[in-house]
Amino acid sequence: SIDGQRLWSSLMAMAEIGATPNGGSNRLALTPEDTAGRQQLIEWCAGIGCHVRSDAVGNLFFRRPGARDDLEPAAVGSHLDTQPKGGRFDGVLGVLAGLEVFRTLHDHQIVTERPLELIVWTNEEGSRFAPAMMASGTYAGVFTVDETLARQDEQGISFGQALEETGMKGSLPIGKPRLASFLELHIEQGPVLEEEGLDIGVVTGVQGMRWFDLTIEGNAAHAGTTPMAYRHDALAAAARLIDRLYAIAADDPSGDSKVTFGCLEVDTPSRNVIPAQVTLTVDLRHVHDDQLDTLEARFYSELDALVEAFGVVVTPQRLWNSPVVAFNDHCIASIEHATRARGIAYRRMLSGAGHDAVYVSRVAPTAMIFIPCRDGISHNEAEYSTPEQCALGTQVLCDALLHNAND
Amino acid sequence: SIDGQRLWSSLMAMAEIGATPNGGSNRLALTPEDTAGRQQLIEWCAGIGCHVRSDAVGNLFFRRPGARDDLEPAAVGSHLDTQPKGGRFDGVLGVLAGLEVFRTLHDHQIVTERPLELIVWTNEEGSRFAPAMMASGTYAGVFTVDETLARQDEQGISFGQALEETGMKGSLPIGKPRLASFLELHIEQGPVLEEEGLDIGVVTGVQGMRWFDLTIEGNAAHAGTTPMAYRHDALAAAARLIDRLYAIAADDPSGDSKVTFGCLEVDTPSRNVIPAQVTLTVDLRHVHDDQLDTLEARFYSELDALVEAFGVVVTPQRLWNSPVVAFNDHCIASIEHATRARGIAYRRMLSGAGHDAVYVSRVAPTAMIFIPCRDGISHNEAEYSTPEQCALGTQVLCDALLHNAND
Ligand SMILES: NC(=O)NCCC(=O)O
Ligand SMILES: NC(=O)NCCC(=O)O
Repeated sequence: SIDGQRLWSSLMAMAEIGATPNGGSNRLALTPEDTAGRQQLIEWCAGIGCHVRSDAVGNLFFRRPGARDDLEPAAVGSHLDTQPKGGRFDGVLGVLAGLEVFRTLHDHQIVTERPLELIVWTNEEGSRFAPAMMASGTYAGVFTVDETLARQDEQGISFGQALEETGMKGSLPIGKPRLASFLELHIEQGPVLEEEGLDIGVVTGVQGMRWFDLTIEGNAAHAGTTPMAYRHDALAAAARLIDRLYAIAADDPSGDSKVTFGCLEVDTPSRNVIPAQVTLTVDLRHVHDDQLDTLEARFYSELDALVEAFGVVVTPQRLWNSPVVAFNDHCIASIEHATRARGIAYRRMLSGAGHDAVYVSRVAPTAMIFIPCRDGISHNEAEYSTPEQCALGTQVLCDALLHNAND
Repeated sequence: SIDGQRLWSSLMAMAEIGATPNGGSNRLALTPEDTAGRQQLIEWCAGIGCHVRSDAVGNLFFRRPGARDDLEPAAVGSHLDTQPKGGRFDGVLGVLAGLEVFRTLHDHQIVTERPLELIVWTNEEGSRFAPAMMASGTYAGVFTVDETLARQDEQGISFGQALEETGMKGSLPIGKPRLASFLELHIEQGPVLEEEGLDIGVVTGVQGMRWFDLTIEGNAAHAGTTPMAYRHDALAAAARLIDRLYAIAADDPSGDSKVTFGCLEVDTPSRNVIPAQVTLTVDLRHVHDDQLDTLEARFYSELDALVEAFGVVVTPQRLWNSPVVAFNDHCIASIEHATRARGIAYRRMLSGAGHDAVYVSRVAPTAMIFIPCRDGISHNEAEYSTPEQCALGTQVLCDALLHNAND
């Protein structure tokens, strides 16, 4: 059995690194805080004899030898980076649960058949460098290394430059080691498990998601002298778009359409100047790719309507398309089996959030385990799961990993 | 006759100070650029023997002696500060036209009965420090000196602190000198004169305007996992407000309602986080105060609707109310007379923009002269009036000033 107390202590210790005023964490990818968090993990792993290797995009791999080191490893992992006002569990739990499993096996001197691998993927959140899951995507061959290194944050700092500064760029070839299986434990980040009174979600797949940058250009003009009929107000146009698209998603009776505008910036704002240019981000999600196509088409037709109504110029750029993913049956079964064996109340479910498992699933048998989180809140400093919930998820991860490793 | 060529040269020279890439100027109030612009004027005035005095809020006064220096002066003036991407004429014309009039009188050694005063009012635009027309309002007793000095910009720098750094705080008592009359020449900043093929607008008053700061607080949550029905999206709420209020103004058949949201900021934005907090500015205008009351009431009822629909918390703060103003009949008549005497095509009109003349009119007989500007565009780097239009306006200013000074 894993040690829930020890797990909780590592979670709380990690949360101190980049701690925010209201009880969350700020470790945006490849910042000094993110690096300090990774450094802490490297120390902890060294304490049980696991040493780190890393690849060209800063993914960290910690190996625990097995009886048959010629076999591909059974892996677990997630990410340590957070949102700018992120919670203490998103990503972190999946990594520190892996650490706790390794520590438990170390304590009991258990040797698995296959070697084990604990992995920390770089820049999962996509908040500093878009898109999300960038380095697991690179590992899986979805993005090239060059493409990833060239991505820039808002300040124009490249991923490659930021990574160099961490000193965590390594020589492990991209895509190596190949994995026999990959399991990721994560908080649900939504309300379903809590509302249904369940302890574990066996995640069978992930919804589709598309990200866009959008620029709307109108004309700067005087707020007091410009008749409404003469205006080309870029912010009023953006507001129309947001309101319409939000309503389209909110009115979807299936509840499966999701629309979020996370960032919006007015260029050279001034109270008495009609905004000339607005840039914003658009996040569209759906559990069916064809419905996501429809939602994207609605987005474009609403843009056309803006051009018509406001005489603005719109420049949308789709920068990410992550299609709906179905996880591996075998991995799903090993989680489900572990859950049943302990008599835990669970359900199968889809994930609304993207996870590194999405891309890893392209190159290795993969599935995920969810635990409930309070009020379904995530990407918020108030994010919370209880010590018991974290421990239970970690126990299921341990059991399923052992199953995969000895299979 | 004034020298249109010389006037144009001073306009273009002033535009070089804080010049922006697309042909405009950036001399936000009390920045080094604004100070450099004022310094330039001080030099030019010294060249004709006019020396500067200033008051506790940095208003600059240049006196030209008259035959009867016991009489209150006849004054002209405007402002030299600009929007962050402002034009070359807004405010500047009224000041440099005054300079041109003084130079013309100097060249011809004309002595007026009353002394003359050329005035540069501090922070007219209200872009860096809200509200607008702050220092003419202080001169007129609408704002106290302490209140004005304590106003802060976005960075938390106070007006008082910024003024100290310019070295232009002076010892002239607030409200002094008292003025026998005040005339302000300005570009129209709207399309009316150009569309009607007229050369001069005789401005009989200014519409009412109200400024608000608004904070909308929702909850941060995950863009992918949070069902639409569970969201408290502060940006979606802001968008609804903007779209509704904009439509209310646009649908007003009189065309007299104006609504502008110039600034909008998302707190800690991230693409995949539902915005928790949005701050924005609201600018409402109307030519009738009672209709402005109605517009403000609509604003509040739309806010109530947001609370209902999005479960957000709204905190509006009205930070400025400038009621509808009617200028002085005598001053209007002296402008109208000057315009007619030269056979210029003109009309009487209201101003949609606020001007220093609004507050000065509370303590001295006041009126304004407008000239057309291209496409009615202002608060935009593309703002333009021709050398001929500027010269004609300056001639009318000169004639009307002489009338006021010798009356
Ligand atoms: N798990 C998680 O929050 N991932 C970030 C990517 C996304 O926006 O879904
Ligand atoms: N003239 C001018 O642009 N004044 C600024 C105050 C306003 O917004 O009307």
